Amino acid sequence: MEKTLINLVSSVVIRTDSKVLLVVADGLGGMALPETGLSELETAKHPNLDSLARESACGVTTPIYPGITPGSGPAHLSLFGYDPTKYEIGRGVLEALGSGIKLTCNDLACRANFATYDKSINEIVDRRAGRIPTDKNKELCSFLQKNITEIDGVKVLIKSGKEHRFVVVFTGDGLEFNLTENDPQKEHRAPLAVKAIDNGSKKSEIVINKFIDRVKELLKDEVPANYPLLRGFAKYPDIPSMGKLYKLTPAAVATYPMYRGLAQLVGMEILSTGETLADEIRTVKDNMSKFDFFYLHIKKTDAMGEDGNFDGKVKMIEEIDKYIPEIRGLGFDTIVFTGDHSTPAVMKGHSWHHVPALIWSKFTPINDVQKFTERECMHGSLGRMHACEVMPVALANALKLGKYGA
Amino acid sequence: MEKTLINLVSSVVIRTDSKVLLVVADGLGGMALPETGLSELETAKHPNLDSLARESACGVTTPIYPGITPGSGPAHLSLFGYDPTKYEIGRGVLEALGSGIKLTCNDLACRANFATYDKSINEIVDRRAGRIPTDKNKELCSFLQKNITEIDGVKVLIKSGKEHRFVVVFTGDGLEFNLTENDPQKEHRAPLAVKAIDNGSKKSEIVINKFIDRVKELLKDEVPANYPLLRGFAKYPDIPSMGKLYKLTPAAVATYPMYRGLAQLVGMEILSTGETLADEIRTVKDNMSKFDFFYLHIKKTDAMGEDGNFDGKVKMIEEIDKYIPEIRGLGFDTIVFTGDHSTPAVMKGHSWHHVPALIWSKFTPINDVQKFTERECMHGSLGRMHACEVMPVALANALKLGKYGA
Repeated sequence: MEKTLINLVSSVVIRTDSKVLLVVADGLGGMALPETGLSELETAKHPNLDSLARESACGVTTPIYPGITPGSGPAHLSLFGYDPTKYEIGRGVLEALGSGIKLTCNDLACRANFATYDKSINEIVDRRAGRIPTDKNKELCSFLQKNITEIDGVKVLIKSGKEHRFVVVFTGDGLEFNLTENDPQKEHRAPLAVKAIDNGSKKSEIVINKFIDRVKELLKDEVPANYPLLRGFAKYPDIPSMGKLYKLTPAAVATYPMYRGLAQLVGMEILSTGETLADEIRTVKDNMSKFDFFYLHIKKTDAMGEDGNFDGKVKMIEEIDKYIPEIRGLGFDTIVFTGDHSTPAVMKGHSWHHVPALIWSKFTPINDVQKFTERECMHGSLGRMHACEVMPVALANALKLGKYGA
Repeated sequence: MEKTLINLVSSVVIRTDSKVLLVVADGLGGMALPETGLSELETAKHPNLDSLARESACGVTTPIYPGITPGSGPAHLSLFGYDPTKYEIGRGVLEALGSGIKLTCNDLACRANFATYDKSINEIVDRRAGRIPTDKNKELCSFLQKNITEIDGVKVLIKSGKEHRFVVVFTGDGLEFNLTENDPQKEHRAPLAVKAIDNGSKKSEIVINKFIDRVKELLKDEVPANYPLLRGFAKYPDIPSMGKLYKLTPAAVATYPMYRGLAQLVGMEILSTGETLADEIRTVKDNMSKFDFFYLHIKKTDAMGEDGNFDGKVKMIEEIDKYIPEIRGLGFDTIVFTGDHSTPAVMKGHSWHHVPALIWSKFTPINDVQKFTERECMHGSLGRMHACEVMPVALANALKLGKYGA
């Protein structure tokens, strides 16, 4: 059988003292502003990133496939070296990770909405219960959690989110997730029953329907949030850990729960940190001796792109640039600086466009890149690569990969 | 399990009102003339294509694999987004499509030659029957068709081709095509019997051998075309339609039967059109409201390349260029302009070389390409891509692809 890249890497990996830093500026890649013909990275002044790029191997990555716009989950899996079309992270799991819940393989997670149900006509009249205030949501979840902790021996965890959204995690043996959802998807329809699509999911069906009934009963006098709609049932995916695959002792530094969750999925130790990039860098510094791989996540580039705030994203890049000397000063053997996907401000969302990447070490080849931009990185020595290939090249640059074959 | 590109695209595709045009200038890619060092595209003046390229994402495609020279069938499948190494179009089917026969999944098609058989020595003495005139071929096929319409309940369709070539299509249930051929491949050998290689093809074996005997009998007094040699037995491949895969309503505009046939294979509606590019563009215009994807095929670039007519191909490119403003004026959201493969006039045939491609939309990223040539497109933002990736990127540019994962 052919070896996949990750299996081949795993077969030649060696444990060494060298240290690797992967900095992910979320949604880093951009698009030209029509008026100037320049992207966010081309507009921003980032002399430190440019100077790092000149000493690095540069390229552009395809997160999934050409034309495919990735969510954060698959985009990060790729950067961690995992084929994102093989390892899928269900919506429920991502939501649970995003709300800071630590999951294990006995957990079945789902997204939930508070909705408004009109008993007299047996219809969901508002799928979002008028977007109740987040405080009301907290109060309801706390009330439900107090009254529902277990169903048929299955533990139930209820965690409130924003407005009408919350997360439910069922913990127990034999909970499969091949289930239909009770959300009718449109208003003025009757809520559906959750049904198992295979035999393995029968137990989940029973427990979840009992859960829905309990919630209905507990909220029967509530207005407008009197009904739970559950979607995106998913289990913790069975992903081999980075420790096992790469013989690394990896740690994650991220300010947002979802990214900490994603890192936890691949077996990283999650370090508590502050709110700012300065805090994150300090966290890395303080833990240098304990780990040989750090994933450092910077959220704000993506947030600015999502908001369509071109100038804000430019400023954010310039802000990050100021920290590059400090990051270089940490003493890593290999530094990767890239994004998980592009979030062009022009598109106000994630996009399929390629993402600039640099891999710095003492062993970078010939490089003509002068500036760290989409345009220049296209012509760098790494060329166009799949994001899955970043980890192998980073490990190689840290001299952590032995020879394949004799 | 890993998702293939086409499955992944299919899982995120959304139906929208946006419209995509795929223009395929057959055999577009070329090679430098030794005297000038310039390819056909580099020699031709095509200011409109250049200006389109400057606003597009440009790249070069590999139709199948590097080094592999494709036939028209696989090259087109690639451009339509189908892995040409997975979906094979048998020779018989391609020949039938090329001769304008509409096939269904009950059809078993093969290529046939009229040959000269010497009964006294039981040898095929001329595998092409002296390349009889096409008119003679027509006359013989019409005579055979009159006398053979059915064998054992299987319908038989005989369609004449050029010189000694014709096509036979057998229509019936349970006709498999795992068969040996009766063509001895060399002259002065005895014709072979058609034999089934598996049990499923037994019925075909019986019917086809009866067909050969009938033809022999009917042509026994003919000189020199008195024997049928059958090759390339193939059935209509089971290819998922573009409508189903991409949620598109696709239409094809092509002047040659083979390309209409290929488009039909992937479920496009075939629009009748005239002989010229002007006719084809008018056909697209007249049908704009009914379809959201158009495949427009231009044959003459390939024909000039095949003839080794460098100047002719240059002129043809210049001729096409004049129509670019009209094509842009049609109002598509995404325009792809590329070739299915290269046909360098210097090589007088298809080649393995990469093919320049441009994808125009409002969402093209940074691009440095100034001219639509092989040389410049290599450095475009699409870089080197597999031809299979053209459709996903085109659909992405038409905002027809949702996010993969959360």
